[in-house]
Amino acid sequence: MQQNYEACLGVLKQQFGERFEASEAMRRHHVNSTTWLEAQLPDCVVFPHDTGEVASVLKTCNAYGVPVIPFGAGTSVEGHVNAPRGGVSMDFSKMANILEIVPEDLIAVVQPGVTRKRLNEELRATGLHFPIDPGADASIGGMVSTRASGTNAVRYGTMAENVLALECVLANGEIIRTGTRAKKSSAGYDLTRLLVGSEGTLAAITEITVKLHGIPEHIVAGVATFPSIEAACNAVISCVQCGLNVGRLELLDTAQISACNRYSKLDLTEAPTLFFEFAGMEDAVKAEFKVFRELLDDAGAKDIKAASNADEIGRLWKARHDAYWAAVAAMPGKSGHTTDACVPISHLAESIKAAQNDLAELGLPGTIVGHVGDGNFHVLIGIDPLDPDETAKAHKLLEQISERAIKVGGTCTGEHGIGQGKRETLLLQSGNAVNVMAAIKQSLDPKAIMNPGKVLPDSF
Amino acid sequence: MQQNYEACLGVLKQQFGERFEASEAMRRHHVNSTTWLEAQLPDCVVFPHDTGEVASVLKTCNAYGVPVIPFGAGTSVEGHVNAPRGGVSMDFSKMANILEIVPEDLIAVVQPGVTRKRLNEELRATGLHFPIDPGADASIGGMVSTRASGTNAVRYGTMAENVLALECVLANGEIIRTGTRAKKSSAGYDLTRLLVGSEGTLAAITEITVKLHGIPEHIVAGVATFPSIEAACNAVISCVQCGLNVGRLELLDTAQISACNRYSKLDLTEAPTLFFEFAGMEDAVKAEFKVFRELLDDAGAKDIKAASNADEIGRLWKARHDAYWAAVAAMPGKSGHTTDACVPISHLAESIKAAQNDLAELGLPGTIVGHVGDGNFHVLIGIDPLDPDETAKAHKLLEQISERAIKVGGTCTGEHGIGQGKRETLLLQSGNAVNVMAAIKQSLDPKAIMNPGKVLPDSF
Repeated sequence: MQQNYEACLGVLKQQFGERFEASEAMRRHHVNSTTWLEAQLPDCVVFPHDTGEVASVLKTCNAYGVPVIPFGAGTSVEGHVNAPRGGVSMDFSKMANILEIVPEDLIAVVQPGVTRKRLNEELRATGLHFPIDPGADASIGGMVSTRASGTNAVRYGTMAENVLALECVLANGEIIRTGTRAKKSSAGYDLTRLLVGSEGTLAAITEITVKLHGIPEHIVAGVATFPSIEAACNAVISCVQCGLNVGRLELLDTAQISACNRYSKLDLTEAPTLFFEFAGMEDAVKAEFKVFRELLDDAGAKDIKAASNADEIGRLWKARHDAYWAAVAAMPGKSGHTTDACVPISHLAESIKAAQNDLAELGLPGTIVGHVGDGNFHVLIGIDPLDPDETAKAHKLLEQISERAIKVGGTCTGEHGIGQGKRETLLLQSGNAVNVMAAIKQSLDPKAIMNPGKVLPDSF
Repeated sequence: MQQNYEACLGVLKQQFGERFEASEAMRRHHVNSTTWLEAQLPDCVVFPHDTGEVASVLKTCNAYGVPVIPFGAGTSVEGHVNAPRGGVSMDFSKMANILEIVPEDLIAVVQPGVTRKRLNEELRATGLHFPIDPGADASIGGMVSTRASGTNAVRYGTMAENVLALECVLANGEIIRTGTRAKKSSAGYDLTRLLVGSEGTLAAITEITVKLHGIPEHIVAGVATFPSIEAACNAVISCVQCGLNVGRLELLDTAQISACNRYSKLDLTEAPTLFFEFAGMEDAVKAEFKVFRELLDDAGAKDIKAASNADEIGRLWKARHDAYWAAVAAMPGKSGHTTDACVPISHLAESIKAAQNDLAELGLPGTIVGHVGDGNFHVLIGIDPLDPDETAKAHKLLEQISERAIKVGGTCTGEHGIGQGKRETLLLQSGNAVNVMAAIKQSLDPKAIMNPGKVLPDSF
């Protein structure tokens, strides 16, 4: 270990005592397990109690030029918590207080270690919820960092639309506050949205003010089967164009439905399938669903099933809920990895079909699940990480999906972030705008201690 | 004129020929008329035809250290187009092409000089519209710059939520592209949202990709009178908390209603009045309005009138549409100026009442209009700009409104921006986060040629 690292860790150990850990087990626990990227361990883990301690860690690490990697729940999939240059993993699990809930203003103020499920449990009595749902029980700090979204984004937007204000600590230890509790503001540069999605590379988030939403009084949800991906996507386009207030709109391809039938012992028709949900006031939901039902018919949907009680909805949506595990189970001996692209909706069908062709051509097993109301889709592929040929094929698939998405005006990541693996793709997508990102990074973190090796390519 | 300015203008004159203007009339036409801030004329005005010419102007001005002030339609109210250090007003009226409309993806790509009304005329045949409506027929480039919103923001969000991608030119003449056509993206820092609301101080916007929305098939709109501001605000809070999909929700105070009665020859009850609109599919609108009607009753509303045909809605909303002119007419001999604050909705009633008390104590005539669904309100005051006593009182009013908004967690501007007048208030509101704004400004515009004297206080 370099001398400056040793000195830095000495200072932190002194300060944090039992909340400083350097065992290999603990360090290994703090790197990414849901990516094919190689694990790169930090040199230690610290568990700050409050913003002052976060500032103190950053001041120390900045003085010694030692990297700091903010760690939430470790559920990100693009290597965000890896430590390619070693350094300090800053674990926010001891900063997990819900600081304030203001039902009349529909806001909650939380520390970064609070998970979305914890917040929603806490909110139960208020009739409100925090709907952003990336699947995993991510920490809200981590969700800020990756600009997370998920199944509910088609209705409620992503973290970019649901974070009102932040407290965070800059590389030099300075504590700043961005945003306000007002629903909108034109006061100066939008630092909140600059920090949302910055993947811990600009600042460490220490407090988050999020928007809350009323829990809908009535839900109609269900499934519909389509003769083709195009037909399913046409239904999605019609729904979006009509401005229907859809709550969720998810597509599973034939391979995924087959996997679900086997895993969850279902007998769904093995064809492209849309899972939908409408939520709100009962009469409004009924009115919206009536129109949606017509759109489904027009698009050639079959086996349309819908329900409005929770048990029945749970049964209809079971395949969607278990999709990830079903896909993994369908690829025994393989490790499941998920890609992430988002395209303008008119290009969705062709993008999904091209990805299916890629899978067939490369001979990789894979299934497709999409938050299609937003044009976002994931290909889950199974690879043997020890087989260099499969890994190479998987990389090729990833590249092709990203490049095609970029070519049609889309993005190489709708919700997972750039992390380590997509940094060169970011350059392809954003061109010389990456210079501007690098200039901002340089101005806020001149020693490049904040989560280095993420977002920006190494050449920056 | 300084030597570098003369040399710079010589180069631009050479390049732009008839599209370079330095007459006093033309220069005066390019500074702000709807603010009490003193007019500060640029040294010349240029009219670029395309992005290449914008880049060329910036390269030249950057080389000579001469300010550039982007100019759209000149409808901003905080001195954004003033030229405190002289320099070049860059008028985008010749970059006013609608470049592309993609109905199936609900997007349009426009040049910055396109006004929102022009775009909506062009969209008429598509069944889509661009709903962001700041009142004036602002240019879309200008709306990007001030992070504009208006009456429709409660439903559709502000420019921050409705701009997907930008092309812009940096101070050094480099052209960058930010964002994509996908509905969401987690790819790198959100430069689009950093630039939206940056008031021309970071880059000149040359192309904008905006979201479009379906024109609702059915509208129910109307008015309701309340015994007090609190009662009206309680109705607003209930509406927001229920998650009703309200289209517009506007509050006019008693003084404003009186002014409207006189100006538009109406006989509205002179009391705090809510103007509301629900829009969408007919059955959904009816369902939502039914609940809203109950909320109005619960909040003690009287004289509730609603309609669903365009003529009748126009009649009911006439007072709202004419509010600005009615207020100006009610203050003969005075010049009308509008403040802008936005607060968490639970603090709206107290904030509006405190502003009314300020008016009474200071002896200033004024009326209040609010986009209250967002907690945003404006006090329109009449002052004689030549009377230093009245101007001082108006400044005091402005300060008090801003300070109170900040104290309750709100913002000193919901939609007008910081411009020249609120730079010190920004410091009060954002504290040392302004250092971060200044660092970003410095990294992108080291010679400070982009719209200097706006957003950041002079001490930065």
